[in-house]
Amino acid sequence: MEAATWILFTLGVSLILAKIGDSLVERFELPGVLGELLVGIILGNLVYFGVISSEYLPITAGSSEVIDFMAKLGVVFLLFLGALDTDLNLIKRTGITAVVSTILGVFVPLILGYLGLRWLGYDNKEAFAGGVLLTATSIGLTVRVMMDLGVLRSEVGAASLSASVIDDFLGIALIIFAVGSGSLLGLGIKIIIFFLITGVVGWYFIDHYLKFAERLGVEKGVLGFVLGMMLIFSALAEGWFAAAIEGAFMMGLILSKTAEGKRLLEEVRSIGYGFLIPIFFVHTGAMLNFKVFENLEAIKLAVVLSVIAIVGKVAGRGFGAWITAWGRGKDFLFTRENFRMSFQMGIGSIPRTEVALVALMVAIHGGAISPDDAPKFIAATLIFITISVLITPPLLKWAFREEILAQKKLLLENRKEKIESKKRGTR
Amino acid sequence: MEAATWILFTLGVSLILAKIGDSLVERFELPGVLGELLVGIILGNLVYFGVISSEYLPITAGSSEVIDFMAKLGVVFLLFLGALDTDLNLIKRTGITAVVSTILGVFVPLILGYLGLRWLGYDNKEAFAGGVLLTATSIGLTVRVMMDLGVLRSEVGAASLSASVIDDFLGIALIIFAVGSGSLLGLGIKIIIFFLITGVVGWYFIDHYLKFAERLGVEKGVLGFVLGMMLIFSALAEGWFAAAIEGAFMMGLILSKTAEGKRLLEEVRSIGYGFLIPIFFVHTGAMLNFKVFENLEAIKLAVVLSVIAIVGKVAGRGFGAWITAWGRGKDFLFTRENFRMSFQMGIGSIPRTEVALVALMVAIHGGAISPDDAPKFIAATLIFITISVLITPPLLKWAFREEILAQKKLLLENRKEKIESKKRGTR
Repeated sequence: MEAATWILFTLGVSLILAKIGDSLVERFELPGVLGELLVGIILGNLVYFGVISSEYLPITAGSSEVIDFMAKLGVVFLLFLGALDTDLNLIKRTGITAVVSTILGVFVPLILGYLGLRWLGYDNKEAFAGGVLLTATSIGLTVRVMMDLGVLRSEVGAASLSASVIDDFLGIALIIFAVGSGSLLGLGIKIIIFFLITGVVGWYFIDHYLKFAERLGVEKGVLGFVLGMMLIFSALAEGWFAAAIEGAFMMGLILSKTAEGKRLLEEVRSIGYGFLIPIFFVHTGAMLNFKVFENLEAIKLAVVLSVIAIVGKVAGRGFGAWITAWGRGKDFLFTRENFRMSFQMGIGSIPRTEVALVALMVAIHGGAISPDDAPKFIAATLIFITISVLITPPLLKWAFREEILAQKKLLLENRKEKIESKKRGTR
Repeated sequence: MEAATWILFTLGVSLILAKIGDSLVERFELPGVLGELLVGIILGNLVYFGVISSEYLPITAGSSEVIDFMAKLGVVFLLFLGALDTDLNLIKRTGITAVVSTILGVFVPLILGYLGLRWLGYDNKEAFAGGVLLTATSIGLTVRVMMDLGVLRSEVGAASLSASVIDDFLGIALIIFAVGSGSLLGLGIKIIIFFLITGVVGWYFIDHYLKFAERLGVEKGVLGFVLGMMLIFSALAEGWFAAAIEGAFMMGLILSKTAEGKRLLEEVRSIGYGFLIPIFFVHTGAMLNFKVFENLEAIKLAVVLSVIAIVGKVAGRGFGAWITAWGRGKDFLFTRENFRMSFQMGIGSIPRTEVALVALMVAIHGGAISPDDAPKFIAATLIFITISVLITPPLLKWAFREEILAQKKLLLENRKEKIESKKRGTR
C-alpha cells in the first residue's frame, strides 16, 4: 500500500483509540486528554522499539508531513475553540495578572535553569540556552484539560489562556536572543504589526465580514468564512513568528464577542473534538520516545531540568499571579482564594512540548549548545517534556478539586430539585 | 515563510473564495459547486501563466502533498455524506438499474472511443487505452451538484450514487486489462473480500459498535468512532483497489440505516461543507491548466474524445437505465417519465476527473500509449476533463428543471398556506 493509504489508516485508528483512551482514563477520574496521550505513547513506542514499522503508523513524530500538518490543524482548532469559548470580559479583567505572571513565569525558570546548569558544570552559553528551553509553556494541553474539567470559562482559565499567548512571544524572543541570530527589534515590530492587523481589522470589521458571509446565502457559508479567516490569521502568525496558534487564538477572541461566534461553537467543536484535536494529542504522545531513558548521562541532566521546569514555572507564574491579587486590591492579597487561584495558574503553566523542541533545535544549530553536548540535551529535553506532559493533567485536576466538587454538588442539587418538582407535579 | 505556512494560507483563501464563488454562481441559478471550480481554475491558471509562484498557492495540482491529502479527505467526506444522506431502500430498489446502466455506460464509450481513435489512425493498443480513459465517471461532482439541487434523495440520485461506485471498479479493472499489468482475478477477489468485510462486519456489527461508542461517554465519542471507521474503510478500499471513496461510501451506506447516522449528518456536514469539501473542488478546478489549449494537435484528439466521452456516456448509461424501466415493468418502458429519468441518469455520468488521469498515467507507464503520443494524450485528457467538469453542473440543472420547479411550487404553496392559516387565526 502507498504512504497516503497508511495515513488514512493511521488517522482512523488514532481517532478510535483516542476516544477509547479518553474513556478509560476518565474512569479513573482523570482528564480524558491523558488517555489520548497514552494511546500516542503506546503507538509511538511500538514503532521506536521496532515492534511495528513506522511506515504503517505514520502518526509518530516526523514520519509524515501530512500527519504533522493534520496535528498542527488540531492544535490550531483547539486554541481557536478555547478563545471562542472564553468570556472576553474575563480576559480583559485578568490582563494584568496574565502579563505579570507570564513575565515571572518565564524568567524564574530561565534564571534557575541557568544557575542549575552552571552548578552542573556547563559553560555560560549552554547554561543560558538550557534555561531558555524551560521558558515556553505549551498551552494546548492546559486548554484541553481545563475544557475537560469544565473550568476554562473561569478567571484562572481566561488568565491562563492569555498568559500562554504572551508566553510564546517571550519564548521566541529569548531563543532569538540566546543564539543572537535575529533582531529582537524586528520581532517586536512584527508582533506589533500582527496585533494591529488582526486586532484592528478583525475587531472593527468582523461584524461586516460576518454580515457579508451571511448575505452570500450558501450552505455553511459563515462557518467557511470564519474558518478561512482563522487559517489566514494562523498563516500570518506562523509566517511572522512561527506560532500559528496565536492567529487562531486572536480570531477566536475576536469572534467570541459576536452572536455568530457562539452559534458556530458547536460546529467547530464537531470538527475539533470529532476529528482534528484527538489527532494532535495522539501525535504529541507519539513524540515521547521512551528510548531516551536508556541514556544515563542525559537522565542526570533531565532530572535537574525537570525539577526546575516544574518548580520554576509554578513558583514564577504562581507568584506573579499572586502579587496582582487578580485585580481585587490589597485586601485580597493574603486570602486563601488568592493563593489557590495563583497556584492553579502556576500548575497550568507546567506543560512543555513542541516549543521546547524548537528552542532546542535553534540553540543547537545556532551553536549555543555544543555538538558534543547536543545528544544529551535532546534526550534530557524529551524526558522533561514527557514528565511535564504526563503530570499536568492529574495535577490540574487536583488543583481544581474544589471547583469540580462544587460543580458536582450543583448538578446533584439540580437533579434533586427536578425530582422534587416532578413529585409535586404528580400529587 | 515556510511551505507549511503557505498551505495554511492557501486553505484559508480557498475556503473564503470558494464560498464567494458558490454564491456568485448561484445568483445565475447554477449549482454552487461550479463557482468553487471556477475559483480553482482562476487560482490554478494564475500559477500556470506565471502571475503567481506556485509556492504561494500550493492549491494547484501536485504542488503539495498536504493539499492533495486534504482534497482527498474532502471527496472522502463528500461520498460519505452522500451515502449517509441516501435512502437505503432507494439504493436497493434501483440496484438493477444501477448495474445495467453502469455496464452499458462503461462499454459504450469504451467501444466508441476505440472506434474513434482507430478512425483517427491510432493503432489497436492506443485506441483501446484511449477508450479506457473515457470509462470512469467522477462521482464527486455529480453528488455535489445533486446535493446542491436537492435531488440526491431521489431514485435517480440513489441510482447514480451506486452506479458510480460500480463504475470505479469497472474502470480500474479495465485499466489493469489495458496494460496487462495486474491480475483481474486478483482484483475481483480483493473487491469481494472488501465487500465481505465492510458489508458483513459493518452491517451486522454497526449497532454494537455505535452502542459501544455511546457507552464511552466522551465528548464527540460517537462522531470520532464513526469517522475513524470511515477512514479505516477508506484506507482498505484505497490500499486494495486505489479508490478510497468506495470505503467512505460503504460506511455511509451502513450508517444510513441507523438513527445515530441521521443524527450525525449535521456534524459531518459541518466538517465537509464548512472545511474539506470546498478544498476538494477548488483543488479540482486548479487541476485544469488552460495552457493545454495551446497544443493544436492535441485539440483535434480532444474534440473527438470529448464528444465520445459525453455522448457515449449519456447514451450508454441512459439506455442502460431505460431498458430496466427502473424496476417498474414493461408498462413503464415507453413512458415520458422513464425517458426523462434515464436521461438524467446519463447526464449525471458525464464528469471525469482524477480517475481518467490515473488511467492515463497507468496507460503511459504501462506502454499502452507510446511515449511519442503521450504529450498529446495528456493535453487531450485535460481538455476533455475541463469540458466535462464545466458542462455537467448546468446540464444537470437543466435535466432536473421539472423537479426543481415542482420543489419551488411546493415551497410557495406551503408559504401561502401558512399565510392563510395565519389570517384565519387572526380573524
